[in-house]
Amino acid sequence: MNTALSALGRRTAPPPISWLMKTALARPKLISLAAGFTDNSTLPVEISRKLLNEILRSPKTGQPALQYGTTAGAEDLRQLTAKHLQKLDGGHDRAHSPERVLITGGSQQLLYMTLEALCDEGDIILVEDPTYFVFLSILQSRGIQARGVKLERDGIDLIHVEKVLTRLKNSGELRRVKALYLVTYFQNPTGATTSLAKKSAALKLLKKFERAAGHPLYLLEDAAYRELRFDHGEDVPTSLTLPGAAERVIYTGTYSKPYAPGARVGFGILPEEIFSVVQYIKGNHDFGTANLLQQLLARALSSGLYDQHVAKVQKNYARKARVMKLALAEHFPKSVEIWESGGGLYFWARLPKGISAGVKSNVFQSALKADVLYVPGELCYADDPSRAKPDNELRISFGSANEENIRKGIARLGKVLKKFV
Amino acid sequence: MNTALSALGRRTAPPPISWLMKTALARPKLISLAAGFTDNSTLPVEISRKLLNEILRSPKTGQPALQYGTTAGAEDLRQLTAKHLQKLDGGHDRAHSPERVLITGGSQQLLYMTLEALCDEGDIILVEDPTYFVFLSILQSRGIQARGVKLERDGIDLIHVEKVLTRLKNSGELRRVKALYLVTYFQNPTGATTSLAKKSAALKLLKKFERAAGHPLYLLEDAAYRELRFDHGEDVPTSLTLPGAAERVIYTGTYSKPYAPGARVGFGILPEEIFSVVQYIKGNHDFGTANLLQQLLARALSSGLYDQHVAKVQKNYARKARVMKLALAEHFPKSVEIWESGGGLYFWARLPKGISAGVKSNVFQSALKADVLYVPGELCYADDPSRAKPDNELRISFGSANEENIRKGIARLGKVLKKFV
Repeated sequence: MNTALSALGRRTAPPPISWLMKTALARPKLISLAAGFTDNSTLPVEISRKLLNEILRSPKTGQPALQYGTTAGAEDLRQLTAKHLQKLDGGHDRAHSPERVLITGGSQQLLYMTLEALCDEGDIILVEDPTYFVFLSILQSRGIQARGVKLERDGIDLIHVEKVLTRLKNSGELRRVKALYLVTYFQNPTGATTSLAKKSAALKLLKKFERAAGHPLYLLEDAAYRELRFDHGEDVPTSLTLPGAAERVIYTGTYSKPYAPGARVGFGILPEEIFSVVQYIKGNHDFGTANLLQQLLARALSSGLYDQHVAKVQKNYARKARVMKLALAEHFPKSVEIWESGGGLYFWARLPKGISAGVKSNVFQSALKADVLYVPGELCYADDPSRAKPDNELRISFGSANEENIRKGIARLGKVLKKFV
Repeated sequence: MNTALSALGRRTAPPPISWLMKTALARPKLISLAAGFTDNSTLPVEISRKLLNEILRSPKTGQPALQYGTTAGAEDLRQLTAKHLQKLDGGHDRAHSPERVLITGGSQQLLYMTLEALCDEGDIILVEDPTYFVFLSILQSRGIQARGVKLERDGIDLIHVEKVLTRLKNSGELRRVKALYLVTYFQNPTGATTSLAKKSAALKLLKKFERAAGHPLYLLEDAAYRELRFDHGEDVPTSLTLPGAAERVIYTGTYSKPYAPGARVGFGILPEEIFSVVQYIKGNHDFGTANLLQQLLARALSSGLYDQHVAKVQKNYARKARVMKLALAEHFPKSVEIWESGGGLYFWARLPKGISAGVKSNVFQSALKADVLYVPGELCYADDPSRAKPDNELRISFGSANEENIRKGIARLGKVLKKFV
């Protein structure tokens, strides 16, 4: 008998990372520099307890928190979110409208629903090379094509974006392109941050190709790691601050990484046309994100405890990133190129050309034997027929490991690399 | 310029109920007997506060609750859920395996993802006539066809199910049929409960047509209202207790209705083949439901506080249903047929043939003017080209209104009906 699964069901594959996680669990001494988890020790246990007590102290605030809310999200949290983003963007309010804020179960859910709203099977999304691999899993599952654009230290290579768009125009495929997806702050996996100049140029470039596409081309800005900045560098404004943003920027962010993944609340700001549709899709998914978590985040934001907590988290990651930086300098061969990051959870390492760090490589297998795990960079590249996937890169996370394990893990990994590089 | 929306995006319509809700908000004196909300006064404010305090009292339990979990759900909650369902099913453990329990953001999310896994555009799901209208919204949005089967007081009309399947077989459409969707306890909207005999016969009937379909035909049992029983009648076992259930029953349930919609946690038990795929889809949606809420429910279940709370909720609804029953007897014309329910949140009223209670009807408009709102039954019927939608029915909820408003609301509605019936 055949399967009853849909095309989507048949396409949907186990995530590559789940295999990595199982590997990690099977080796109790293994140090994982793979997981994108946040640091357990920084989680806001005390703050959450205090705030939940306040909410549940009286029926007046407790009952609404335990009841259904509206699909778009709690009014106060939508307001606070718009205000929070305005503040981060230096007071800008061009496209920071609470009416277009949608509260979701993490920004992941918003990415998923946005792709549902925009893309049919066979449609095309431009992505960074490399990019966030769970986004690639969504594309794969939904039968959406990806086209990679080159990534530099300050964001995408604009000349390459234009080249890719031109090629798609010439081949008649431009009408299938719906958006350019950028992870703009301390990118997963490379740690790169996109400059405002590049966001602005990308938005203009998309506009230029709209007539040929026959429909709007959206800039999908994923700012999940934005608040995990620790380098005291200047914050880069979001593309919401740019002219035309209200019509063409789909912005996603999250309280999950800076506050707590276990109290999963994310959000998006979407152009009018997209907003309603994604809101209705959200209604079909779950009617709206759990109110209790929304109220928790609203109180954290309005009390100032959220900002205090984020400052603490930033300090912790700054320390751990420094530990990793020093360990890398001490243990890694000099021929390995390192992209340090000023925020987020990841460093990116590139081996000399010709040396693979992929899942089946000697490097990866030897690292496993030496009880240290990283994410092979090749997993972060889209299936794009127009280029081969580089396999000489590693995503190394300082997120969940403690300082001692970061030192040990990097030492182990360095020893392995010295055998092959 | 054209829209950039996908076919799904273009199809996705605002839910009919959102319009009802807006109407309710715009008339402050309006009594809503429309909302499927649970009763605010029964929400477990104190219990949740106590349990969250326990979880967040120490980093040892607090940190994991605020961290990512696994996509399938917290191990303890999956175990407790399987055990809970076993207990409700009188100790049965035929298909109550924790390995196939998936924890979700309400049962709604599980329904959504199950349809993603099973149905392509144009595929067919058999549904009860009438059925849960948000399920119909999902079908509509995803381009899935519905075929209605007649509903009796003890569940679907089996002769009609066989007729519909035979017709689909003869027209060559059977290969597009994927499942039969039943809301088996105190159904939304009619309050009807499906007998075990009917579940068993339905499962056999589906089996009989599988060869012609060329693939498994699943029984999708939605037991969202199961624990809201208040009539002291005997509980009906789920279809999980039937032979072959482990391979063919997709069961969805929720802690949302009996415990708290604002701490949204639902679950499903799925056949092996479906389980993995839906789990991967869940990974793409959100990596797994917020851990903090899962830990809250796990503690509620393991401490016995969940059972205590459910008993209290049941008593409350029993009282309110009795108030509604008395008010209906006093105020409604005798020619209106009432389906009382032994649980859930709804009564179902059927006007004499030829009198419409639909959205545009005099009855509905007059009710609005009299400041009382119900859900027109026609909204609960699938778009099925093979029959006209009945429009002479009303879903009347005793869920969120208090006793005084139930009395007043029914009196107002009765007065309106007497003008037309």
